[in-house]
Amino acid sequence: EDLGYFSAYAHHGIHEEMLKDKVRTLSYRRAVMSNAAVFRDAVVLDVGCGTGILSMFAARAGARRVIAVDMSDVVYQAMDIVRENKLEHIITVIRGKVEEVSLPVDKVDIIISEWMGYFLLFESMLDSVLYARDKWLTPNGHMFPNLCSISLAAVGNVSKHQEHIGFWNDVYDFKMSCMVSIVEKEAVIETVGKDDIMSNSAVVKELDLKTCSVTELDFSSEFLLTACRKGVVTAITGFFDIRFDKDLQEPVSFSTSAADTPTHWKQTLFYLREPIPVCQGEVIRGNVQVLKDPKDPRSLLVTLSVNGRTFNYTMD
Amino acid sequence: EDLGYFSAYAHHGIHEEMLKDKVRTLSYRRAVMSNAAVFRDAVVLDVGCGTGILSMFAARAGARRVIAVDMSDVVYQAMDIVRENKLEHIITVIRGKVEEVSLPVDKVDIIISEWMGYFLLFESMLDSVLYARDKWLTPNGHMFPNLCSISLAAVGNVSKHQEHIGFWNDVYDFKMSCMVSIVEKEAVIETVGKDDIMSNSAVVKELDLKTCSVTELDFSSEFLLTACRKGVVTAITGFFDIRFDKDLQEPVSFSTSAADTPTHWKQTLFYLREPIPVCQGEVIRGNVQVLKDPKDPRSLLVTLSVNGRTFNYTMD
Repeated sequence: EDLGYFSAYAHHGIHEEMLKDKVRTLSYRRAVMSNAAVFRDAVVLDVGCGTGILSMFAARAGARRVIAVDMSDVVYQAMDIVRENKLEHIITVIRGKVEEVSLPVDKVDIIISEWMGYFLLFESMLDSVLYARDKWLTPNGHMFPNLCSISLAAVGNVSKHQEHIGFWNDVYDFKMSCMVSIVEKEAVIETVGKDDIMSNSAVVKELDLKTCSVTELDFSSEFLLTACRKGVVTAITGFFDIRFDKDLQEPVSFSTSAADTPTHWKQTLFYLREPIPVCQGEVIRGNVQVLKDPKDPRSLLVTLSVNGRTFNYTMD
Repeated sequence: EDLGYFSAYAHHGIHEEMLKDKVRTLSYRRAVMSNAAVFRDAVVLDVGCGTGILSMFAARAGARRVIAVDMSDVVYQAMDIVRENKLEHIITVIRGKVEEVSLPVDKVDIIISEWMGYFLLFESMLDSVLYARDKWLTPNGHMFPNLCSISLAAVGNVSKHQEHIGFWNDVYDFKMSCMVSIVEKEAVIETVGKDDIMSNSAVVKELDLKTCSVTELDFSSEFLLTACRKGVVTAITGFFDIRFDKDLQEPVSFSTSAADTPTHWKQTLFYLREPIPVCQGEVIRGNVQVLKDPKDPRSLLVTLSVNGRTFNYTMD
C-alpha cells in the first residue's frame, strides 16, 4: 500500500496543486523568510520535499546546508530544480524513506516539512516527521511548523445533504438506498461555504510538534458547539490550523477553516444521516475519536457522537 | 495494472459522478425508453454495468432478460439495487471479466454499455464490448450506442496556457522549467469555455460499433481546422459524439464538445508548448495518431502534428 502512496506523489499534478495553493506556500515562505535569522547558517532537513520548494526557501534564507528527502520519484525533478536554481552547493536531495535513509550529517537544527493531510492526519506523514525529529533534531532545534490543531464545527446545508444522501433514494426513478450505508460512512473532502457554518469551532486536538509522540495521534475528545443560528445541522466539518511561532520574531499561521480562504485541503465533512434541528444558542454535545486504521495505517477511522447519536466514518 | 483499473470502479464516487451526469444518463434513458419496441422481450447484455442503471432502463423498457456484467466490486451493490427494485426475475448480475465469464444464454439481442473513456478510447473498455459483440450478439442484434466519433478543434486561451506551461518558469521566484517537458506531454482533462473555441471541429475517427474491430482503435488521420477568429491557438481539444440511431424509430445522440453542456468527460486538451498565431479564416493542417501504449494497453499515446510541428502526449 505504501507503493501506491509514494507513486501518487510521483505525478506532477499533485505538486502543481500544492504549489498553486498560495495560502499554504506563501505561509511557508513568510515563515522562513521573515525568520531568516533562525535559518542563517543552520542545517535544515526537509521531510517529504516534493519539488524542493521549501528547501529552496530555506537556502535563500541563509541555511548553510539543506537535506531534502522524499521517497517519491518527484525527487528526480527536485534534483533538476535545485541545479536549475544553482543551489546544489547547499541543497542535497536524497531519495528514500526517512525511516531508512542515511543523512550526510549527524544532527539538524531545523526540520521543515509540509506533511499535513486532509483532516491533518490523513495519510500519516507526520509519523515520518516525528521519526526524523527523534533521530536528528538537536535539543534546541526548531520544527517548521511547530504547532497544529484540529477543530470541528457544525454545518447546515440541506440541499447538499440531499444531493449526497437523499440522492440515492430516487435515481432516475429507481431506488439505490443500499448505497446510503456506504456513502454515509465516508468522510467527504469539500469546500464549505461560509454561510453554511452553523456554530463556533471547537479545538479537539492540539499537537506540539517538538514534543508530541506518534501514540498521541490516536485520540478521543469531548466537544461543545453552540449553534449561531436556528437551522438544521447536516454535517460536522473538520479542519486544522498551523502555526510557526515557537521562539520566532515573526510568528506566522494559517487556517484551513471554512471561514478562511479555501486551500487545497478544503474542509473534511462528516455528513449526518439524520440531520439535527437546532435553535440559536443551543449547545451540541459531542465526542470525536480518531484512530489509524489497523488494516491500513495511512487511513483513518473517525467516530463522532453528536447529541448521543454515534456515526462511524472512514478516510481512505 | 488491471487490478488498479477495476478497484477504482469499486468506489461509489465514480458511479455517483456518472449517474449525476445527466447528459450521459438521460441520453441512455431516452435511447432505451423511446425505443422500447426494440427492447420488448429482448435478451440484453450490459457490459460494465456499474450500479446497474442501464440494465434497469432495459428491464423497464420490456426486456425479457438482462445480463449485467462487471469485474469491479460495485456489482455487489448492483445486486442489492436490482433486488431493491424487484427486478431480480429479469436482471442477472454477474461478477467477472467479459473475456472470462460464462453467460446463462447463448446469444443476446442487444448489447448496451457505457464504455466511453476520456477522449473516447482512454481505458480501452471498448475492447471488452467488441469481444462481447463477437461472442454473443445475434446477427440482427443492436449495439447501444451504435456509432461514435472523435473530433478535434482549436482552442485559444493564453492565460490558461500560461497557468499550465508558463507557471513553471517562475514558481515563487524559483525556476522549475524542467517540469515543462513533463507537463506538456500530458493530455489534460478540463472543461473548455465556449469562448475559447477557435475553429470548426474536424471528425478524425468514426466507429460503427456493429462492425468495427479492435485493430481499428489504433488510428491516424489528417485534419483541417479553419480558424473562426484571429488569435493564438494554445491547445487542440479532443471530444466525442455518441449516437443511438441504427434502425431506431427515435434516434438519440449526445456530444461532449465544448459547445455543448459539459459532461463528466469534460474535454481532452493537448496543450501546444509554443502557441500558434492565426488569422481569421486561416487553415490549420494537422495529423493525429492514437495508439494504445504497448506497455499499458489502458493508456493512450497521442501524436499531434499541427502546421508541421509535432507534439507527443500520453494519457495514463
